Amino acid sequence: MTRTIVESKTKTAIIGFDQPFCVIGERINPTGRRILNEQLEQGNFEMVKSDALAQVEAGATMLDINSGAVFKNKMSEDVRYADNNFVEPPLMKELVSLVQGVVDVPLCIDSSVPGALQAGLEACEGRPLVNSVTGEEDKLEQVLPLCAKYNVPVVAISNDETGISEDPEVRFAVAKMIVERAADHGIPAHDIVVDPLVMPIGAMATAGQQVFTLVRKLREELGVNTTCGASNISFGLPNRHGINNAFLPMAMGAGMTSAIMNPISLPVKQADKDAKRAEAEAAGIVIPEGMDDETFCQLFGLGSTKSKAGKEMEAIRAANFLTNNDPHGGEWIKFNKAPPKAGEEAGGRGGRAGGRRRRRA
Amino acid sequence: MTRTIVESKTKTAIIGFDQPFCVIGERINPTGRRILNEQLEQGNFEMVKSDALAQVEAGATMLDINSGAVFKNKMSEDVRYADNNFVEPPLMKELVSLVQGVVDVPLCIDSSVPGALQAGLEACEGRPLVNSVTGEEDKLEQVLPLCAKYNVPVVAISNDETGISEDPEVRFAVAKMIVERAADHGIPAHDIVVDPLVMPIGAMATAGQQVFTLVRKLREELGVNTTCGASNISFGLPNRHGINNAFLPMAMGAGMTSAIMNPISLPVKQADKDAKRAEAEAAGIVIPEGMDDETFCQLFGLGSTKSKAGKEMEAIRAANFLTNNDPHGGEWIKFNKAPPKAGEEAGGRGGRAGGRRRRRA
Repeated sequence: MTRTIVESKTKTAIIGFDQPFCVIGERINPTGRRILNEQLEQGNFEMVKSDALAQVEAGATMLDINSGAVFKNKMSEDVRYADNNFVEPPLMKELVSLVQGVVDVPLCIDSSVPGALQAGLEACEGRPLVNSVTGEEDKLEQVLPLCAKYNVPVVAISNDETGISEDPEVRFAVAKMIVERAADHGIPAHDIVVDPLVMPIGAMATAGQQVFTLVRKLREELGVNTTCGASNISFGLPNRHGINNAFLPMAMGAGMTSAIMNPISLPVKQADKDAKRAEAEAAGIVIPEGMDDETFCQLFGLGSTKSKAGKEMEAIRAANFLTNNDPHGGEWIKFNKAPPKAGEEAGGRGGRAGGRRRRRA
Repeated sequence: MTRTIVESKTKTAIIGFDQPFCVIGERINPTGRRILNEQLEQGNFEMVKSDALAQVEAGATMLDINSGAVFKNKMSEDVRYADNNFVEPPLMKELVSLVQGVVDVPLCIDSSVPGALQAGLEACEGRPLVNSVTGEEDKLEQVLPLCAKYNVPVVAISNDETGISEDPEVRFAVAKMIVERAADHGIPAHDIVVDPLVMPIGAMATAGQQVFTLVRKLREELGVNTTCGASNISFGLPNRHGINNAFLPMAMGAGMTSAIMNPISLPVKQADKDAKRAEAEAAGIVIPEGMDDETFCQLFGLGSTKSKAGKEMEAIRAANFLTNNDPHGGEWIKFNKAPPKAGEEAGGRGGRAGGRRRRRA
């Protein structure tokens, strides 16, 4: 049975076919997050801390730590900041130290800069996952020896020098080659977590089928665990959560064992609060002055002003139950133990639904 | 390619591996629906009409028509009403005529009484699905000749005289036997829609895995379409919708091609409206007198007082897209074309999520 062991200072998580899905929280990543990037440039780690705590609270098994910041202001004063090999290693070290100071979950050291991977591995307690190696020759030669030296598992992304093939057979062949090259370095297949690369379904109609087929084949033929950037599937489409919520259970049904994803739903936006207030007042409703934001949002069904577990986490927990990786639903029942609020529809109609077939039996 | 053709007066639907999932609306069924049963006893078909319209509007492909009413009052006056063979045939005829008068979708004639099946088949325009035959000898001998005579497809439920086996191999064997017996009557495998029987996951931890494995095997080895009473999976559990929403995409990923289910979410309950009003007033909010129910429910985030498509329909539409049975998401985009209301979280964060891997490519 394939088991990828990851560890924090005191906790062990197992990625495996017979395990609950491994949710790797993606939020600590300055790539494309302007405010986080600015904070990091200013040496401010408040958002890193709050994102670490919120993701673990929402149910993340591991946290991805990406050091790919771009320090534009510093760059204009010191040209060395234009080089990620200069920026990322000390930043990764700081991020890792800081995050493992506030949460005790295994980390995923995420950088395209080998020096940053090394810095992260040195700073990290336990057994982190390295993110990532690809089928590119220079990556193989830089990253695999590091993984072997530190005895850590690694995410293998199925692209190579030629880019990302649209042909899933080519992507499978790249994954297979990485597994073989890893073996040359003494890294066993159970320490490779293959990312078969999820294409946006809006751009490629077969993207879902490709992933499900590839995951099954990777599992059956290479015996490896798998992961993906889950939200890529819905890129560019309306109601992305709706697609993600179906994609994750389907991928899990096909044998996917982890995903790099956002486990939290974002708090209510100010614009939405303002719009609701205007709508209510226009309908003649009088809202007492000084009502606090959280009460307002709860009363008017906007949700919470605080981050909380996203709907994707509900889908994953349900799929854990359905794949018998939450036997008898202990986790599901705990997750749903809060009584439903007014307005939330009670699920199903017990007697009838359950009884439907029984009448015939 | 397996294709089960069903027809209404003017419309054709295909159940098949390369087709959008066939949603068979289950609401027109007096079994366990006290009010509907009472209305039918009084010869009142208002709820039948409104359920027919609401289910088709929510996206049902077909409607199941179950005539299994129990007429207690009539029974006390006339003992013949204690016999379903007396009650169901005329009721089925009336239900079928009535429903096909208000909606133009293929029907599923659902009864355990052969006479009711025959009455439904006679009254029905187009090519309905018969629900159902089992592996019980008397059912096989009563139902299969009817299906052959009317040249209609049939749901085959995988239980026999010994009941429902907990062993999926036994259930597969029963399905295989029914397919063979049907062939003796000249009914081809593509006109058999097997219900592998979904057990409640709360009672049987392997229930999900059983269904996924069985569906795959039924598809690959017998080449048949499949269906199920989808909500059975979550019987007795909290947040049943959460489980159903994951189960349906997973079943579709395994190859399930239809389900008998409720496509509509129920309107807001009076108790929920009352609770919200009390909560709001306790917080000092003044609600103008005479505000209509729909405005109140919308403003306070309770949803709608009207029936609408349930979350399961969103999950199914997403899974159609992900299995490439909604190529390029035309249906998905149409379904989601309404702008999100204030308070609904926008799905995903386009730039970053989609860009994540690109940076590495």
